[in-house]
Parts: sequence; C-alpha cells; structure tokens
Amino acid sequence: MSAESVVDYLQRRHDDVMARLDAFLRLPSVSTDPAYAQGMADTRAFLLDWLKGIGLTDVQLLDGGGQPAVYGAWLGAPGAPTIIVYGHYDVQPPDPLALWQSPPFEPTIRDGRLYARGASDVKGSTTIAIETVAAFLAVEGRCPVNIKLFIEGEEETGSPSLHEIVRRYGDLLKADAMISADGGRASPTVPTINVGARGLTKLELVVRTAGKELHSGRYGGSVRNALHELAAIVASLHDAEGAIAVPALMDAVRPLSERDRRDTAALPFDEAAFVADVGGIAAGEPGYSIRERLTLRPAIDVNGMWGGYTGTGSKTVIPDEARAKITIRLAPGQDPDQAGAALKEHILAAARLGVKVGFEAIGGGSPASTLAAEHPLVQAATTVLRRTSGQEPVHVRLGATVPITAIFKETMGLDTLMFGFNLPDEDVHAPNEFFHVPSVALGLRAWPMLLQELARYAPAAFHQQAG
Amino acid sequence: MSAESVVDYLQRRHDDVMARLDAFLRLPSVSTDPAYAQGMADTRAFLLDWLKGIGLTDVQLLDGGGQPAVYGAWLGAPGAPTIIVYGHYDVQPPDPLALWQSPPFEPTIRDGRLYARGASDVKGSTTIAIETVAAFLAVEGRCPVNIKLFIEGEEETGSPSLHEIVRRYGDLLKADAMISADGGRASPTVPTINVGARGLTKLELVVRTAGKELHSGRYGGSVRNALHELAAIVASLHDAEGAIAVPALMDAVRPLSERDRRDTAALPFDEAAFVADVGGIAAGEPGYSIRERLTLRPAIDVNGMWGGYTGTGSKTVIPDEARAKITIRLAPGQDPDQAGAALKEHILAAARLGVKVGFEAIGGGSPASTLAAEHPLVQAATTVLRRTSGQEPVHVRLGATVPITAIFKETMGLDTLMFGFNLPDEDVHAPNEFFHVPSVALGLRAWPMLLQELARYAPAAFHQQAG
Repeated sequence: MSAESVVDYLQRRHDDVMARLDAFLRLPSVSTDPAYAQGMADTRAFLLDWLKGIGLTDVQLLDGGGQPAVYGAWLGAPGAPTIIVYGHYDVQPPDPLALWQSPPFEPTIRDGRLYARGASDVKGSTTIAIETVAAFLAVEGRCPVNIKLFIEGEEETGSPSLHEIVRRYGDLLKADAMISADGGRASPTVPTINVGARGLTKLELVVRTAGKELHSGRYGGSVRNALHELAAIVASLHDAEGAIAVPALMDAVRPLSERDRRDTAALPFDEAAFVADVGGIAAGEPGYSIRERLTLRPAIDVNGMWGGYTGTGSKTVIPDEARAKITIRLAPGQDPDQAGAALKEHILAAARLGVKVGFEAIGGGSPASTLAAEHPLVQAATTVLRRTSGQEPVHVRLGATVPITAIFKETMGLDTLMFGFNLPDEDVHAPNEFFHVPSVALGLRAWPMLLQELARYAPAAFHQQAG
Repeated sequence: MSAESVVDYLQRRHDDVMARLDAFLRLPSVSTDPAYAQGMADTRAFLLDWLKGIGLTDVQLLDGGGQPAVYGAWLGAPGAPTIIVYGHYDVQPPDPLALWQSPPFEPTIRDGRLYARGASDVKGSTTIAIETVAAFLAVEGRCPVNIKLFIEGEEETGSPSLHEIVRRYGDLLKADAMISADGGRASPTVPTINVGARGLTKLELVVRTAGKELHSGRYGGSVRNALHELAAIVASLHDAEGAIAVPALMDAVRPLSERDRRDTAALPFDEAAFVADVGGIAAGEPGYSIRERLTLRPAIDVNGMWGGYTGTGSKTVIPDEARAKITIRLAPGQDPDQAGAALKEHILAAARLGVKVGFEAIGGGSPASTLAAEHPLVQAATTVLRRTSGQEPVHVRLGATVPITAIFKETMGLDTLMFGFNLPDEDVHAPNEFFHVPSVALGLRAWPMLLQELARYAPAAFHQQAG
C-alpha cells in the first residue's frame, strides 16, 4: 500500500473535495444557538451520509445528552494501530452579520481564501481528514491503520456532554492514539509539531477582616479593610516587572533545555505585535522571550476579584470579606499540588496579623502535558513534515491545555497529535473567517502520509510513550 | 418666663408623657415596607392631632413625593431666634420578630427599660421635644423661641424626598438653627456635645491594561493583568500598619489641638471592645487613639473593588479592566478637592508604565463640619449640660456626616445641635430595641432649659457663627 497513489488521487480530485467542503460549509451548524437546531440536524444527516458513502462501518450518532457526535469506523487492519480521527462539525455564531463581506454560510473564494463561518475552525481540516480516509478506501480498498472518525458537535460550546459520550461509548472509542484536525499550524513558513501544553491549578481565596460589613464613617481609620488586605496579598504575588514573586513555586520549575530555547526561537514571532494586537502591556519574567514565558514558564493570574459595594453610585462601607479567583498555568514538570500548596503558603505568610484567609477549591489541577520526542505521533509527524516542507519541524507548545485532548487523555489514556491545517491569521470566531485554499492541497498530501507512517508502529508503542 | 416652672410641670406629668410615648410606639411606622402604609398614615394622623392639640399653628403634612413630614409651628416670639426642632416618626422594620422578648409594637417596661421598635430611634427623644414645646405653651402660653417642628417620615430609608421637601417648603422652613432629637448621647456618665463630623470625598478608579479580556493560557505570563495592577495601586494607599501612605494628602491635615486631645480622652472608650464587638482587626495611624483616628484624622477606604470573572467555578481570563470605589473621610480643615487631587496624583504615580488609569466622579465632596466653641448652639448646650449633670461637657465629633444635618446645612444654611437622649447600648435597628426610662425625665429637664438658653441670642448670632 502506498500513500503516493492516494495523494495523487486526492490532487486529481481537488475540485470534488472543494465541492464537498462547500456543501459542508453551507450548513449553518451553530451549536450554541437553538435557532440553528435544524442546521445542526441537517449537518449530522450530511455527515452520516458522507461517512456511509465512503464505506465506513458502524456509522451512527453518539448521544451524550447534548449535541450528538457523528461516528464511523474502518477496522480492517488487524494488528495495526487504531487511531481516533477527531474533528468537529459545529461552528461559532456568525454575528455580527453586517461585518461579513460575503454571507457566512455562502462559501466564497476571493484571492485564494475560502470565506465562510467554520472554514478555518474546523470544517476545512475536518474535510481533509475525512477525504483522506475516503481516498484510501477508494484507491486501496483499505486504510494503513484502523480508523475511528469522531466528529464532535459541541466544541464551540465547551463540550458539555463529551464526558458523558466517552462514558457511554467508551468501548466503541477504544483506540491507541488520536489525531485531531483541530489545532492548526503555528506558522505559514515553519512546520510545527505541538508537543504539549501548560498545566493548570485553580483556587479561590477568601479574605475576612471582620464579622460584618462596617460603616466607613464609624470605623474608617481604625480597622482593617478586607479589600486593602486582599490587594496587599495580590500585589505580593508578582514583582514590579510582572514576574512571579513566590520563590517556593518557582524553585520547582525546571530550567529550559537547549532544545526548548532553540525550538522557541525558531518560530518567527513578533513580540511587539503580539502584545499590541490586543492593546496589551508587555510584562513578565525577565530573561525569557514571550513565547518561552507563554509555553515553558508558569504564570499566576487573578482571573476575578471582588468585594464590597459594586453597584452604581457609592456606599460607604468597609468590606469584611473579599475574594479572588486565582489560576496558575504550570510549566512542564511542575506538580499541580505542589504549586498550589506553595501559592497558599505564600498567601498565608503575606496576610497581616489577624486577617483570616481561606481557600476554596474550584476544580482539580492538571499537570503540563508533554509528548516525548520519541513518541510515535511525534516521530510520524516529523517524517511527514520533513518530506512535505523540506524543513526540520519545530516543536511548539501551547500556553493552555486544549479541553478535548485533556478529556481523551484523562478518560481514555489517549495522546493526541494536533494535525490541523488552519493558520493563525484566519479570523477564527470573527467575521470574514476564511481558510487559505492552498492549505487544502497541503493537508491532502500530509494526511495520507501521516496515516501511512503511523502504520509502522505497533499499537503498544503509542501507550508506552505516553507522556 | 422661666424654664423651671415648665420643668416642674413636665416632671409632675411624667405619667402622661409616658402614656403618649406608649401610644406613639404602638403605631407601626415602618417606612421602608409598603405593608406598613396604614401604620405610616395612622402615625401621621396621630402627630397632626397631637401638634394641633398642643396649640401649634400651620399644622400640615409636607409632601415631597415620598413619605410626608409632619409640620407645626409656634411663631409668637418676634425678635427671638427661630429653631427647627427635628425628629422622625418612622422606624426600622422589626424583623426578625422571633428574637423580640415582647412584641415590637407593644411597648413594655422591664428593669427600667422601655422596649419597643423606635423607642430609642427616635420616638423617645422626639416625644421629649414635642412635650417640651407643649409644656411651654401650657404653662407659659408661649415659648422662649420661635419653634418649627419638623418630624420626618423617611429617615430610616435615607430621606429620599427630603431635598424635594426642602425645595417645595423652603419659605416655611426658614429658621436660624436646628435642634435634632436624633443623634444621642455618647456616654451615660459624661455629658457630650457633638461639634462636628468628618467630611467625605469619593471617586471611582478604573484601571485598564488591554483592549479586551485575554485568555490566560494564551497570554498568561506575558502581559499586565488589570487586577494585579489595581491591587498594586490599592496596596500603595496604606502602609503595613494601615496608616495612609499618601503624603500630599496627609500634609494638608492640621495637627490635633490640646482641646482635641483632651476632649477625645475625656470620654470613656474601650478600644479593644470597640474593635472586638464587630470581630474586627485594629489598624491605623500610630500615635493616635482610635477615637482620634475616627473623628479627627482622615481615612481612605476602598468600599468596593471588582474585575474579571466573579461567578461560580472558574474562567481563565486575564481581565483588561478593574475598578475600585474609594472614599476619603476628611479631617477638620481638609479641602475635599485638594484631598481628591492628592489621591488621584498618588494613584497616577503608583500606576505602572502603560497602565491606563481613569477616574469617575460618584458625587461631590463635602468638607468636615465644625461648630465653633463660641457658637450659640454649643454655648447654650454647655450651660444646660453643666447644670443638669454638674460636669463640664465634653466636645465630641462624629466619624461620618449625618445626612439630615448635611442637607439642612447645605440647602438652608442651618447649623444643627444634636440633643437626643438615647444612649449607645439601646440596640437600635436590632431586636429588643429599648430606651432607658430615666432618659425621659432627663430630657424633659434639659430641653426646656435649652430653649430658654437659646432665647438669649439674637437670631443673627446663629448665622455669624456658622462653621
């Protein structure tokens, strides 16, 4: 079996692929808005037909009580790895409609860009994945690996029933690894492989300074104010430059490796533009580039803080209680519990005499994830990207965990390779979302090669290397 | 004319006075709750009858669109000062009812205490004021000064229509000074005269660090967080002991005088109990007693602070905007505008490079008020309290302006002497509110003497001395 014949076949049929993508994009599959319920149902029907048409078996909806996922399998390669191919068929709402140059559900090509809601996120890359499987079956009558296509319908709403789907259909979804059509390229010029994400730990801090709210006329100047105390604690978490000022937390962070430094530097990245694009103010740990800080160093952020009177006008109170929601983004190797404990100890030490400090859990922590360089997913992607780009792929990491991959890792033990072909400039979630048309052909070369490469590994290899 | 005969008359008729107070207290005049509308109307009818019955003229309701005030005058002393006698007929809600040992609207005397909602706040002292006027008219056929009784119906709801009442009935309410039955004694053993209150200035602070809320996974560790920046600014307002750390604001505060120190020390005051009673933590400017800090020194309090995600669970955002409502309690002599400007300059200097700071006004400032020791109100009260207590009265100040007196000062130019007879332990606004029964006789001695003393001054003297 050869990927080349499949690639040739797909290149010859490029127009057919574009026509199917066009049909897919015309379906208004907005998952968050009940007004689009018919669009969602139509999209599922379209996918069920498509998957049956290309010869998948067991094609069905996987219902977890929300928007069902669409599933189809080809399991004719005994002994070869079984790969879940992930995509999603739901899209963001198209509002504000007035800002679209062409209607969001009427795909339009201008200047090499295919404009439509969902073109980049992620019907374009999902189509590449499905067409790849279809081409193997059409040309070879089989795939190099066992395939379980899993097309989710709730990615844009935070996957509320994904846990339940995995619980109900756990047996059906058993696999050795996942390849995601979501999670695209980091650069148009440098081939990248995502090898991990920062971890996360969360807590809610409660500061109490009195038994009740006090009148500032009767007590102002004589007692502690919960907001002043919370402010002092929060201010103690960072130094003036914005670097974390919690030594016990930073002591546990491993230094960057040579490869970390090299990979991070390899990707073209305009630091000034990155910050200016969101009207931000650069700040953080000296001695590290922004990309290093974002992906290889921890960050503490107060995500919310409140206390006292927050309505219109004024109310002259001394608040007795104030709260802050705090999260730590964890660097590779950091233990969520150790990091959380270090933060708590720092806060307790920073609180002034008499100030009562409490902590409330707001969800469990998760460590940073890392795919080792030797992992079959990384090895296979490296081989493919070397061949398609003529360059050595760069390892990149994300600053935040992708919820979908975290859920599959946690519940099924599956590692994920993100292999989408969207690019960072495609106005995802905004008006005039588009997909670079050449990305379709690029993806249709790379995906067949990837499936072929993955067949070189024993199923157990994917689990032994799990990071 | 002699106050002695009037005092004698009132002491002889003590039971009659108590009977009228009992009738007044049985009327459930809860202003905040529409369920008590009939009780409010009945109370107004009761007062109108009462004031007519004692011989006042022009008895009427003054309607400003909310709960009307009850008004009645005696203006038969041409050339003598005209005094507004202030009280209020509305009371706090009695909830929680289950905690009352006797029903809140069934006045009950136990152990020398008259238990009822409103007994202390302020039907007891209001009755003393009305009975004093009634006794002068009954015994002497006239009063030493011209009297305008003004019994408010909205004190417990923040006097929402008082401004409008004063606007509509400004001519009717013209006077030389006000004596308030509200605002009681500071101590059961030391006679006190309230000679002032701290001022107030307010602002809302807005801190912006980006053009939009950012994802903490994508930006955490690389940009400023509005909550961190607000916390740093708020933390810079006070030192570790809780003293104000804004030199330009403190430089403008005048040092305490010998008399300030002496008067503040003269009043028995248990600092530890004051703080412990509300479960607070003592803090503030070293070198000053708590009473000095509360009444003669400024205080900065953040009354409310908020930003980012404040709902349940977590949302991993970097807030781009954060806000704080800040008030300054002003010491005597401080200019509200200067203090506000000093605070703003400090905040602007404390904000880190690039952080956008804005200020929004939330109401105008008012300076501290002070009645000079030579003011006729203070002189008359001093004479009376010396005579009734055999002690030299101590000058006290309040930490906060009383809204009613501020409104009358601001709109009518009237200074107020607070001459209520309630005491600090009477569980005002709480279940089992009571009035010490001996306070009735004490008030009925002092009030006639006070009116007699005030007659010694020319009307213009009250205005010349206005502080």
